Amino acid sequence: MDDEKMKFCVDTNKNNSWYIGTNDYDSKMINKFETVMFQGNGYMGMRAAAEEKQLHEQRDMFVSGTFDAFPNEVTELPNLPDLMNMEIQIDRQNLSLKDGQVANYHKYLNMKNGELTRTFDWFINDKRISFKYRRFISMQNKHLFVSQVEITSVDDELNIAISSGIDGRQSNDESQHLMEGDKRLYEGQYIQMQAETQQSHIDFVFNVRHKLYIDEVLLGAKPYINMNRRQIFGNYDVDLQAGQTLTVIKYANVYTSIDQDVPKDTLAVDSVAALKRASLCNYNELLQKSERVWNKDIWQKNYVQIESEDEKPQVAINFARYQLATNTPNDPRMNIGAKGITGEGYKGHTFWDTEIFMLPYYIFTMPDVAKNLLTYRYLGLQGAHKKAQGNNYQGAQFPWEAADPTDGETAPLWGSADIVTGKPMKIWSGFIEQHVTSDIVIAIMDYLNATGDQDFAENMGYEIILDAAKFWSSRLEYDQERDVYEINDVIGPDEYKEHVDNNAFTNYTAQWCIQRAIKVYNLIKEENPELYLKLSNKLNLETTYEAWINQVNRIYIPQPNIEGIIPEDDQYLARKQLDVTKFQVNDQVSTIFKSYNLTQINEMQITKQADVLLLIYLFENMFDDDIKQSNWNYYEPKTTHDSSLSQSIHSILASDLGLADEAYKFYEMSCETDLGVHVGKAIRGLHMAACGGLWNMTVEGFGGVRMDNGKLRIEPHLPASWQSLKYQINWQGSVVRVGIADEKMIVQVIGDGIEFVSHGQEYQVPANAKIEIEVPVEETVMD
Amino acid sequence: MDDEKMKFCVDTNKNNSWYIGTNDYDSKMINKFETVMFQGNGYMGMRAAAEEKQLHEQRDMFVSGTFDAFPNEVTELPNLPDLMNMEIQIDRQNLSLKDGQVANYHKYLNMKNGELTRTFDWFINDKRISFKYRRFISMQNKHLFVSQVEITSVDDELNIAISSGIDGRQSNDESQHLMEGDKRLYEGQYIQMQAETQQSHIDFVFNVRHKLYIDEVLLGAKPYINMNRRQIFGNYDVDLQAGQTLTVIKYANVYTSIDQDVPKDTLAVDSVAALKRASLCNYNELLQKSERVWNKDIWQKNYVQIESEDEKPQVAINFARYQLATNTPNDPRMNIGAKGITGEGYKGHTFWDTEIFMLPYYIFTMPDVAKNLLTYRYLGLQGAHKKAQGNNYQGAQFPWEAADPTDGETAPLWGSADIVTGKPMKIWSGFIEQHVTSDIVIAIMDYLNATGDQDFAENMGYEIILDAAKFWSSRLEYDQERDVYEINDVIGPDEYKEHVDNNAFTNYTAQWCIQRAIKVYNLIKEENPELYLKLSNKLNLETTYEAWINQVNRIYIPQPNIEGIIPEDDQYLARKQLDVTKFQVNDQVSTIFKSYNLTQINEMQITKQADVLLLIYLFENMFDDDIKQSNWNYYEPKTTHDSSLSQSIHSILASDLGLADEAYKFYEMSCETDLGVHVGKAIRGLHMAACGGLWNMTVEGFGGVRMDNGKLRIEPHLPASWQSLKYQINWQGSVVRVGIADEKMIVQVIGDGIEFVSHGQEYQVPANAKIEIEVPVEETVMD
Repeated sequence: MDDEKMKFCVDTNKNNSWYIGTNDYDSKMINKFETVMFQGNGYMGMRAAAEEKQLHEQRDMFVSGTFDAFPNEVTELPNLPDLMNMEIQIDRQNLSLKDGQVANYHKYLNMKNGELTRTFDWFINDKRISFKYRRFISMQNKHLFVSQVEITSVDDELNIAISSGIDGRQSNDESQHLMEGDKRLYEGQYIQMQAETQQSHIDFVFNVRHKLYIDEVLLGAKPYINMNRRQIFGNYDVDLQAGQTLTVIKYANVYTSIDQDVPKDTLAVDSVAALKRASLCNYNELLQKSERVWNKDIWQKNYVQIESEDEKPQVAINFARYQLATNTPNDPRMNIGAKGITGEGYKGHTFWDTEIFMLPYYIFTMPDVAKNLLTYRYLGLQGAHKKAQGNNYQGAQFPWEAADPTDGETAPLWGSADIVTGKPMKIWSGFIEQHVTSDIVIAIMDYLNATGDQDFAENMGYEIILDAAKFWSSRLEYDQERDVYEINDVIGPDEYKEHVDNNAFTNYTAQWCIQRAIKVYNLIKEENPELYLKLSNKLNLETTYEAWINQVNRIYIPQPNIEGIIPEDDQYLARKQLDVTKFQVNDQVSTIFKSYNLTQINEMQITKQADVLLLIYLFENMFDDDIKQSNWNYYEPKTTHDSSLSQSIHSILASDLGLADEAYKFYEMSCETDLGVHVGKAIRGLHMAACGGLWNMTVEGFGGVRMDNGKLRIEPHLPASWQSLKYQINWQGSVVRVGIADEKMIVQVIGDGIEFVSHGQEYQVPANAKIEIEVPVEETVMD
Repeated sequence: MDDEKMKFCVDTNKNNSWYIGTNDYDSKMINKFETVMFQGNGYMGMRAAAEEKQLHEQRDMFVSGTFDAFPNEVTELPNLPDLMNMEIQIDRQNLSLKDGQVANYHKYLNMKNGELTRTFDWFINDKRISFKYRRFISMQNKHLFVSQVEITSVDDELNIAISSGIDGRQSNDESQHLMEGDKRLYEGQYIQMQAETQQSHIDFVFNVRHKLYIDEVLLGAKPYINMNRRQIFGNYDVDLQAGQTLTVIKYANVYTSIDQDVPKDTLAVDSVAALKRASLCNYNELLQKSERVWNKDIWQKNYVQIESEDEKPQVAINFARYQLATNTPNDPRMNIGAKGITGEGYKGHTFWDTEIFMLPYYIFTMPDVAKNLLTYRYLGLQGAHKKAQGNNYQGAQFPWEAADPTDGETAPLWGSADIVTGKPMKIWSGFIEQHVTSDIVIAIMDYLNATGDQDFAENMGYEIILDAAKFWSSRLEYDQERDVYEINDVIGPDEYKEHVDNNAFTNYTAQWCIQRAIKVYNLIKEENPELYLKLSNKLNLETTYEAWINQVNRIYIPQPNIEGIIPEDDQYLARKQLDVTKFQVNDQVSTIFKSYNLTQINEMQITKQADVLLLIYLFENMFDDDIKQSNWNYYEPKTTHDSSLSQSIHSILASDLGLADEAYKFYEMSCETDLGVHVGKAIRGLHMAACGGLWNMTVEGFGGVRMDNGKLRIEPHLPASWQSLKYQINWQGSVVRVGIADEKMIVQVIGDGIEFVSHGQEYQVPANAKIEIEVPVEETVMD
């Protein structure tokens, strides 16, 4: 199996699984590395572009939640003025890796503390100059970005000219969101730029200051200021003797008018004062402050340790946790974009990816973040009502794509003209990909089960569930002849099938939603009459409830056929079959489109991503093992895995089914989603759901953690090549540490005692105690 | 004098003064060469960027008159989707001059027919590939741009992948004017992109098609279409044998909804049809069609031939005429921007540069274009009224910066905050640089004198003159004590002096305007009562005339002092003097700001550009030779020539004064404005006034052509290094060809006979005849 080991685009370090990077400057990889070595703190994020401009770079900086719509376009996260820029001239020659000679090139991201370093020697005009760049976005002060460059003249005298500041000549593929505001200079050295979004009228303030040292002696020089349209730079000119080092520290911050930690009307002045305070510290001091927060708030909470011959599994789980930490705004007004804030792909919009693929991680490691992510959906109820009404439904129909929660649907509903016919094209996802409403209810139930957060339930969770079920009730289509309720003309999770009827995933989850709502209705009516009254008035529950009761058992639920296969939809099983294996390649995406167009694919038994299998994963108790196995056997070979959402589900389900090799194969494929060698993948941003999926495969799949009817279940399936796996989760307010090795499992609790199930047996761990149990040896079930 | 010869940034050709270019790919020169080798046809223009993307390039394409304002910004010409792009991969390696090795690099503009060629050999992966790019914007079909590349595999087999189409990811310093419209494909090969400006709602249609040949055999391949946001490209993949040549012709056109030659509502379809027709011809055929128009409409009308040892004077006058031809929209709704359409500098806005520096060329060579340029001001009367009213004046106060003629003032009136104090800064030019209103009247009088165009006079010219004089009348400030009318708090042409009182240039020309208006009033009242009645009603002439009569002889006109010096303004002569010579350097601009700030400069006898001397040049009959000489002696040493408007005036005046060496020195300096070696100059666009100035120095200065009280005067001053000078002008509808050599001048007339004056003597040339006269030997007047 050695030759099938995962191939990463980045170099890794056998002795330190926190480092990813490259020792080779390859301009073909420029955009991929910008994505993979992304830095952020949830509030803001920057791609790992170089300080100096490079051809074909994609320099992006975003602040979460600052959506704006360019005229006639869909709302998106504006690409903000660049703070990392620094153009350096050596003896009037621009530093460029394409000129002169470059040696000893290393660019590395330390995922432990979020620091990106880039070092190289540059040979130009017979001189050798050594460069060391370092930079990070602070986890301790969310507004702060600090960078430093050390330039050492190895053998000669040099003149160094530096131009560095705030470069507002950024845009989203040349759509410009920002109106330029004032440019200011405070105390001769604090450079400021203000800007405002065109449509959403969010104000931004950006500040920069520099400190220069020669061999650690601070220089007093104030910058010569150079202003252009959308640009303000400080310029410095320094002569260096042979052997001397010039160190430039660049302190930068950004504030917006939607920040809640600062008053809006004094943003300009307060932000300068904040930068002034920050710049009392040097680079290392600020980095250490940030490191402490990384350790305390992130690494202590989401601990996962893998012991294996290959460092890559640990690198992958570190990468996943790093990217989830850097891309998640811990603010209920914002959510995680499908590509986080790592690139312009999907415009910063949030999909069901959050609920189904990322929330398990947050529910189990940082329930407060999970709560904010779900609160975002509560704040989105108004937009969900708007969407439902627009489609002649009732209740809360959540948007397929979400941005500002109050916006409602932000998927483009009409595309541009068809390029051949010139007719406007309807984009269907926003209309008929409806399962997202169920996905949100699934996530809420998981959150409530894992945390027992009664506050959230009563203030938000129950209302969302009832309102979602109200939507489904209005969405059902009654077929008088068969006396059933159907859901026709939808797109399920498998986006290779448009306009299908009775998609299994959609129908099962819709029914389940209504069942949950009935339970919630009865619960609150009985136990919390005040809440019942409130919600009843708000949602017209009496009438709604009557409809639910009338409908719930007559919803058409596709049943397994004689071979035990649950039909993906009414049409699927009658479609043409073909051999899909040749399209199941991991170094390219959507190769099937080289052979067939979407209309043709729609007519064949080809699945983009787990669809029935996802249903089985989410509702394992609904299906017995035979059904699970026969559906696996049927659908997996028909799945191209062209969606990054597919593989992790397959890996976990394979673990559940005891298909260890399959589980590991899909695990490896999923690890390669962003870290793999496919050059074109991830250039417009990371696959955040794959990062969530990585944790899910590791902790839910191999670690065996699941919720079973509201109970914790731990049934590990340690991969053969792993010696041990340790991880930490939260359960009902307690911290649970699990260690698996040598066919033993140790479960340690910090906090109140917990209960869990493993292989049918119930275990109790008392408060602040641990127990050790045997893990049954896996028997691989192979046909 | 040889070592003082002009230094040009471009290489020139001793044997062919139509070529400018470079044999060296120097990335420092990228923006300068983009400007200098600009291509256009007045309707549209493109900078000479490379087909493949390059770092730090400034890729601009403009269509004249399509102004739009980005929110909170001043209106400007949008930088349009790029049609010249072509990315080429050889064996999957991107063509880039920064990779591999480049040899035999040549990039040349043929100014005779507007064709730009770029040839080089590229060595990559041990293969040698020869590239020959050619392109032009058609003078015959104003919408058409055609380019061609020939790629020859010298010794090996190659795979060539080409991506080429319409790249809408362009902006003005990242301000985006265009909303993306439909992208279309017609007949599998015509690529179309539509777009619309945000604020002015001008529609654009861009079309591209390709034809590919191997060794002149047409390939049938249709493109694989690749669409992204703001982009649509055709992709081709071709295998080439050793020795074979792939030729790609790219046909492109652009149409807008303000075009008057096509119906608006069928733009999309008609423009494709037009491209289809054009692409029936090959590259050379289309180039020849364009060449014929160049010869007939341009080179036959603006003929200037210089015989001298150095080719540079002829290159310079070819360059000036080429740029005036490529940058001048022959459409009365549009004018010539200070930088034409060669770059984003000055946002495409028109200044007094047109009337004072460019109109002489058009009046004397293409009076129909001159008429359109002046008609533009007539169409601007409404905006001029708006500006006057906004400042509590009457009549027509023409804008300091003009864009769409109906816009009125488009100079930014308030800048952003002062960077230190944070206070909003008033930008004074739009308020108090008022002489432009006189400059327009000067140009109208010149046009009428040279052409005798009575139609223009009666339909537009007289009204502008009267309306301008009405403004000046309302602008005058009565000083009761002295019983004079003053004009206080202005900026004259010398912009180093803000807020001065009684600027000589302003006061003289204001009085002259009113004098002209009085004459026009009396003339039309007497000879054209109908017109008089119309204008009298429109402009309330009775009252206005009374004011003129009351004011005109009491306007304060600064008189020469005892030394014969006309004070530039009330304050100038009392200011501190200093040695300005060290700031009179031609390879840098505004070096004075390294020593002084604007406030300090304001307090010293330093002049940015000819001010009193400009007055003397324009109104030579108002001043006797002693006054001219003493003002030259006084002001020239105080002038930094930091404005590109300054040198040509000095050169002509020096010619007039018989200062041959001085005249030639300023001539050479002026030739270097755009063509010189100063790297930073002209990167944001050409100095169109300097191009006009080049013709003025050559024909008005050395050629001695002037208008003297409405009469033609020809008094040549041939530079010592020139053997002969020949040029052609228009006078009163006749073509006049002048040849100067060997102290003789031949004046030939095609058309009706003309009269002219030379050194006090009147000459008559009968219809279609020529005469030869002696040119007196120059006596250099040197102190």
